[in-house]
Amino acid sequence: MTPIDEYLASQADRFEQELCQLLRIPSVSTDPAFRDDVRRAAEWLAGRFGQLGLTTELIETSGNPLVVAESPPVEGAPTVLVYGHYDVQPAAPLDQWNSPPFTPTRRDGAIYARGASDDKGQMLTHLFSAEAWIVVCQGLPLNLKFLIEGEEEVGSGGLAGFLAEHSDRLACDCIVVSDGSQFGPGQPAITFGLRGVAYFEVVLTGPSRDLHSGSFGGSVANPAVALSGMLSALYDIERGKILVPGFYDDVIPISEQQRDQLSMLPFNEKQYLAQLGVSEPAGEAGYTTLERRWARPSFDVCGLTSGYQGEGAKTIIPDQASAKFSFRLVPNQDPAKIAASLRPMLSSLCPPGISMELRDLGGSPGVLVPLDSPFVQAAAHAIEQAFGRSPLFTREGGSIPIVASLHETLEADTLLLGWGQDDDDTHSPNEKFSLADFHRGIRASARLWRELSRVAAKG
Amino acid sequence: MTPIDEYLASQADRFEQELCQLLRIPSVSTDPAFRDDVRRAAEWLAGRFGQLGLTTELIETSGNPLVVAESPPVEGAPTVLVYGHYDVQPAAPLDQWNSPPFTPTRRDGAIYARGASDDKGQMLTHLFSAEAWIVVCQGLPLNLKFLIEGEEEVGSGGLAGFLAEHSDRLACDCIVVSDGSQFGPGQPAITFGLRGVAYFEVVLTGPSRDLHSGSFGGSVANPAVALSGMLSALYDIERGKILVPGFYDDVIPISEQQRDQLSMLPFNEKQYLAQLGVSEPAGEAGYTTLERRWARPSFDVCGLTSGYQGEGAKTIIPDQASAKFSFRLVPNQDPAKIAASLRPMLSSLCPPGISMELRDLGGSPGVLVPLDSPFVQAAAHAIEQAFGRSPLFTREGGSIPIVASLHETLEADTLLLGWGQDDDDTHSPNEKFSLADFHRGIRASARLWRELSRVAAKG
Repeated sequence: MTPIDEYLASQADRFEQELCQLLRIPSVSTDPAFRDDVRRAAEWLAGRFGQLGLTTELIETSGNPLVVAESPPVEGAPTVLVYGHYDVQPAAPLDQWNSPPFTPTRRDGAIYARGASDDKGQMLTHLFSAEAWIVVCQGLPLNLKFLIEGEEEVGSGGLAGFLAEHSDRLACDCIVVSDGSQFGPGQPAITFGLRGVAYFEVVLTGPSRDLHSGSFGGSVANPAVALSGMLSALYDIERGKILVPGFYDDVIPISEQQRDQLSMLPFNEKQYLAQLGVSEPAGEAGYTTLERRWARPSFDVCGLTSGYQGEGAKTIIPDQASAKFSFRLVPNQDPAKIAASLRPMLSSLCPPGISMELRDLGGSPGVLVPLDSPFVQAAAHAIEQAFGRSPLFTREGGSIPIVASLHETLEADTLLLGWGQDDDDTHSPNEKFSLADFHRGIRASARLWRELSRVAAKG
Repeated sequence: MTPIDEYLASQADRFEQELCQLLRIPSVSTDPAFRDDVRRAAEWLAGRFGQLGLTTELIETSGNPLVVAESPPVEGAPTVLVYGHYDVQPAAPLDQWNSPPFTPTRRDGAIYARGASDDKGQMLTHLFSAEAWIVVCQGLPLNLKFLIEGEEEVGSGGLAGFLAEHSDRLACDCIVVSDGSQFGPGQPAITFGLRGVAYFEVVLTGPSRDLHSGSFGGSVANPAVALSGMLSALYDIERGKILVPGFYDDVIPISEQQRDQLSMLPFNEKQYLAQLGVSEPAGEAGYTTLERRWARPSFDVCGLTSGYQGEGAKTIIPDQASAKFSFRLVPNQDPAKIAASLRPMLSSLCPPGISMELRDLGGSPGVLVPLDSPFVQAAAHAIEQAFGRSPLFTREGGSIPIVASLHETLEADTLLLGWGQDDDDTHSPNEKFSLADFHRGIRASARLWRELSRVAAKG
């Protein structure tokens, strides 16, 4: 890889400058005020892929455009789809930034800007590594497809629509996603599992308006009391078990091998709890904190609303009470099945005099890639060469619904290779991306194309 | 009473205008933003009593000022203390009002405004009836003391302090309170029993900030989940029983005689439920709706707050969750004893990793007045004359904590003479007071002074 590494070293400054160009475009997808900037980011990217000689298309969707680019075909080589996104989270609260969010600023070996790590910086590592192959070796050793969307931060609606109708255009042997983080500084990881999610809102309605709790209390069902009862029936706090009928039916138990593997990760629970401001761990009995976060389902109430929420006392029976809550799912659990079991359970718990509306706010299944996949092994080699140490194999508790969809629809192994760090503050003020991680990511990516090219294509 | 009635008829319009003047002052005692308005209401009232020639004083307290006014002494006549309040409940939710809460609006024979019935409209009936006596008869037939406070909706702290130190200034033979409702339209009532109350707020704190429910869910105790569990443990919804240890120890069972009496009241349950917009009754098994409302304790959650309450989904473990809740008590139950039993119960229910703060937002015992009191009989005569029918003797589910204190401290029979209606929506949007009830209340009050003047003073 010496000629490629030499090329990468010679272009390092320009790569940083180009990253800064893209970071200067405030492509905030959630705020319509930035609509033109979002498109500008897509066009900037399409232009760059075009310069590399890739067949590039800006594909219109129901929302923001997709950038899809394909390298010239390499007969017999596998096809790898690189997924990333050019949209970013809002920058607010602005007063907490030490430098303006869309004026990329170098400090302490990192670039500070909204989107630096999530996902512009990480996504570009794959573009620059492709450039190195094309310039130095006159081509890539495999078939590379880039799929860069502009709505990851707002639910990937446009891409989901495109995927449903044109999945053939995205056909591949393996999907590469760099939109996460390493396990720790200098400790790269391959994330081979994501949890799924099933998110609901329940709205209970009692009397037609708030009532005086003195005059009427005791004679009318109280929706906030009913809500407490119904939510508490969903979860056994003491044992950490979800009580929805059949909830665990499809859960694949963690194997002893996986438990061993997780237990050997350099995880400091004390530090973890201190960082979260929590006095003691909690969760499902019989499992460790990492198992609970990554490999077991969980239940959370994300919001509660009812009645009087101001200062002091107001003596009412509220007319309504509502809760937002979610189940995190492990691979093999089906969000639709959970919803189908939850609905009659809650209906039967809803007391007389209260009417219930249960809203399904969306779900996605989990993802699990077999560790013995040749693509996983190839990625591990590439990372080991670039980082000087072999990656840890980890899972992640969060869900990336569109990755789950790509994984399922394209039936391709999915490699979650994060170059960022846990403390990159990706959804917070002062987002950053370490320049060392940026360049290491490019070098790892360049090696990734070689290693993946040696795996047999599906056929 | 003809000359007095003629005077009242001639002044009817002005009385309504003056009520509207007071209703325009948003004297919301629970919200510090209205502090100046609260004082303005007190000053308006003090001015009005002064105009009547009563010895009037604005008495500063730890909270909002008291308005105390005394009529010139009448040798040998009993002393009657009229209690009322010039503060009001908050107007929220504002979007449910059909006309602005502090712009009194006449519709369908009623005045709509926050405080119209509770208690500005009812309280002023006694001021206007006193005016009639003073103008028409050059004086009242008894010793009248007005005690109008500005913290009834927030626990009457200032008045409680004043009462503890200066109860001699309030010495009286009988207390008159018009801060409730008739039994039904045109069916007046004397309320001889009030429930007590014990009101609490519990605040649960988990992590030091909202956490991502994907990355951390399952490993950290969720305060909103804990809250649901703790609240649901307080109450058996199915049987309608409060589960706080010892809660029912001091409850005096309803006698068969009282049950008979209550069962004979012209109460239409179907109509009652329809009026509240409720499909079926709820409450303690084995009791009727009136028993549940008036003579049995009850439990209500009055407010819930936690996490994300906006549109759509936000995947967080909230850092806090809190609830406001109350127990209604029957006479002989002690709010302090309830609080003392509740605290260790909730502490033991609070799961590891969550810290709990339980705030006691005030309580008061219930009140029960002997039906054979001569003041009760005198009030019944006055009401019968003004309303054309004798009052029913009822109890009330609400609590007027300060009335319980006045009753106990001054050792005076307490007459709860409500001119309002059950559907006045006193703590809800679109509070109203029927103008017919307003004027009938003034006429009944004018007769009340005569009837009460014939009862022997304590000595």
